[in-house]
Amino acid sequence: MADWHEISGGVTAPKGYRAAGIKAGLKPSGLPDLALILSDVDAIAAGVFTTSQVRAACVDYCRQLLQAKPSARAILCNAGQANAATGSQGWLNALESAMLLGQAFGIPSESVLLASTGVIGQQIKMEAMRQGIPQLVAAVSDTGSDAAASAIVTTDLVTKSIALETTFSDRPVRIGGICKGSGMIHPNMATLLAFVTCDAAVSPALWQQMLSRAADKSFNQITVDGDTSTNDALIALANGQSRTPAITEMNAEAEKLEAMLTAVCQHLAKAIARDGEGATCLIEVQVSGATDEKAARQVAKTIVGSALFKSAVFGRDPNWGRIAAAAGRAGVPFEQENLRIMLGDFLLMENGQPLAFDRVAASNYMKQKANSVVPNQGVEKLSAYSSSDATVETDQSATSRYLKDDTILISVSIGNGSGKGTAWGCDLSYDYVKINAEYTT
Amino acid sequence: MADWHEISGGVTAPKGYRAAGIKAGLKPSGLPDLALILSDVDAIAAGVFTTSQVRAACVDYCRQLLQAKPSARAILCNAGQANAATGSQGWLNALESAMLLGQAFGIPSESVLLASTGVIGQQIKMEAMRQGIPQLVAAVSDTGSDAAASAIVTTDLVTKSIALETTFSDRPVRIGGICKGSGMIHPNMATLLAFVTCDAAVSPALWQQMLSRAADKSFNQITVDGDTSTNDALIALANGQSRTPAITEMNAEAEKLEAMLTAVCQHLAKAIARDGEGATCLIEVQVSGATDEKAARQVAKTIVGSALFKSAVFGRDPNWGRIAAAAGRAGVPFEQENLRIMLGDFLLMENGQPLAFDRVAASNYMKQKANSVVPNQGVEKLSAYSSSDATVETDQSATSRYLKDDTILISVSIGNGSGKGTAWGCDLSYDYVKINAEYTT
Repeated sequence: MADWHEISGGVTAPKGYRAAGIKAGLKPSGLPDLALILSDVDAIAAGVFTTSQVRAACVDYCRQLLQAKPSARAILCNAGQANAATGSQGWLNALESAMLLGQAFGIPSESVLLASTGVIGQQIKMEAMRQGIPQLVAAVSDTGSDAAASAIVTTDLVTKSIALETTFSDRPVRIGGICKGSGMIHPNMATLLAFVTCDAAVSPALWQQMLSRAADKSFNQITVDGDTSTNDALIALANGQSRTPAITEMNAEAEKLEAMLTAVCQHLAKAIARDGEGATCLIEVQVSGATDEKAARQVAKTIVGSALFKSAVFGRDPNWGRIAAAAGRAGVPFEQENLRIMLGDFLLMENGQPLAFDRVAASNYMKQKANSVVPNQGVEKLSAYSSSDATVETDQSATSRYLKDDTILISVSIGNGSGKGTAWGCDLSYDYVKINAEYTT
Repeated sequence: MADWHEISGGVTAPKGYRAAGIKAGLKPSGLPDLALILSDVDAIAAGVFTTSQVRAACVDYCRQLLQAKPSARAILCNAGQANAATGSQGWLNALESAMLLGQAFGIPSESVLLASTGVIGQQIKMEAMRQGIPQLVAAVSDTGSDAAASAIVTTDLVTKSIALETTFSDRPVRIGGICKGSGMIHPNMATLLAFVTCDAAVSPALWQQMLSRAADKSFNQITVDGDTSTNDALIALANGQSRTPAITEMNAEAEKLEAMLTAVCQHLAKAIARDGEGATCLIEVQVSGATDEKAARQVAKTIVGSALFKSAVFGRDPNWGRIAAAAGRAGVPFEQENLRIMLGDFLLMENGQPLAFDRVAASNYMKQKANSVVPNQGVEKLSAYSSSDATVETDQSATSRYLKDDTILISVSIGNGSGKGTAWGCDLSYDYVKINAEYTT
């Protein structure tokens, strides 16, 4: 069992972090739209960014900054305008935003990381940004995580937050995180943003490696519609304020830290998947028996991304054939005679052949797994919320206050290898099409 | 301009081919479900099959046969049961089907290629097959192409057929084709099957190379939902009955033959895309400026496969941001400053930045492009139809009797390279979700 526990506080749970979120007037709706996470001291900073060739200015900015020096004091995030496809003016706006925040705190602008989400092709409303930054600075507090989480969302139905605590050498070490998922009510508005704070002391290279591996097991394993955004960013800070011994190599404590970081990322990633546009449930696909982890993750992600399978789940149809077909086209070699598929406790297929099973009971299992969030009605509707007092293990966290037991579990084995991997997604509903089609000119 | 013209006759247009399609009682609906294409003499045979690890017995059977000897006399295709995930009994049923047909014609069973489409995990109804084969043999005729085209469909709204003619050394050379697309009203029922006949004389290796390249520019460039079937198969016969000189190397005539083969495959592929589940239009994405053709095709296919973009097209929203985002994540490196996007004649983006354009007019352009087929209502509804008397150039072919000008054209340039590629798909509508979700247990 994991030897950590969940605590309150989100990104301000680790020592030495403050945060804020305010209404700066960037969103047309007037909802909170400017967020800040601040470390009291220079923090080691790692990042994982969109692989798209079409990238927002803030993504290029962060990449350059972290390449030059893997540390930061602050993450400034605006919602409303994505600052993607905005050319040189977009680049200048990014630089000015970082400079203004740096001046306000008396820190170098190179210590400020940036993220944006909102409409592609629109310049950040810089007048609102200029007036907002002093307010943001004034609002910063060590309980500001929920406010920040509310200010980074776009069309998410709920905010997403987590914090975990463990001990190293009898001293507490904490990791906190907030994120937002994809929403597309407005044209071109979609992005996955996640910010993680940690108070452990860890070397930059190791922290980046840990973050990349954690992303591979979490954010890179979720899919709502397979569309990578121009702005996707995961940024993680580690400021050493836990005063625990510096972790510089992959020893037992490093493994524990990475496991906890992975748990934080997986929690946030699942929160995004279950809040996917039009989603009525969370789908978890566990693949085993692969030659390695990467192959297993690939199969899991292909299944959870299949439009046919997602449609079947929306109809609560225990459609093993679509699972088998998706597994088969994942690009991972396996013998179909070894294919085994389970839905919850129902064994649907073994040795590559369908088994007789109770279809009504299997469908009922799926029907019981449904979230209770009112589907997105085409308006920005935000419910500020933190997972603080729930535990990860029982999955009573984050959105599950809104979502009852909503996880449909698919287990697939493709052979006798030791490789395992999991992916998460959501079903494909009328509301997905509605949300993404009904904005017309 | 292409120096060929369209003729009637489908797969029986080339010399020396006969075909048939009958109601054998394999489909629960009682509609035609058993098809045959027969060459009077041994024909060179080439095939392109599903890349899925989960394959139907007929796919493995054809692969083995063609590997041993690249020739065939007949293609036997049943609809109703896919013979996939059917184990050793499925394999025996495939062998028996080929044997029965071989006996009926007095040809070796190794001369019979097989294809199946229908429900995965169900054995072929062999009693119906055994009784059907003599009827099928009796029905074979040199005008049987439309009957065969009707007997291979599952939930397609229209049948799909084409034949082209050119001359080599003043003698006519013809290529004909029929195909079916994906439909998923019944669980697990989906497959792309295409059968092409040709009366040219061509060497086996060259014919296979031509077919593989043609598939890369046609069937491999369409997507309805990204789900590869267990049964996908493209089989092409060339029987030499045109009595034209044998083509054994890539000379001018070989290039002409390949171009005509590619035109046949593209016609059939587009017919499948525009008849995709729930489709209200055909989307054609032309990409240029890539370093090579493969890269261009990859970008085109990624755009046309984007669920977000497809949803926007359903809403007739000129959403350039989603096109740019999809291009960016295609895995093909390019400089975003070089990105140029057109919708019909509307220039939406240049040098990586959005342009002002008439959104209402652009949306109207999209609204005018709509097929007039009644969306699939959840029942098998077939309209036997051949493209015989229309021409490819004016696109008055196949389904376009049903579909008015339904093609929304997207042109994307990603740089200064010479690589060009095209992909075809359809929009993502409520009906897609309905068709694939509302079959519940």
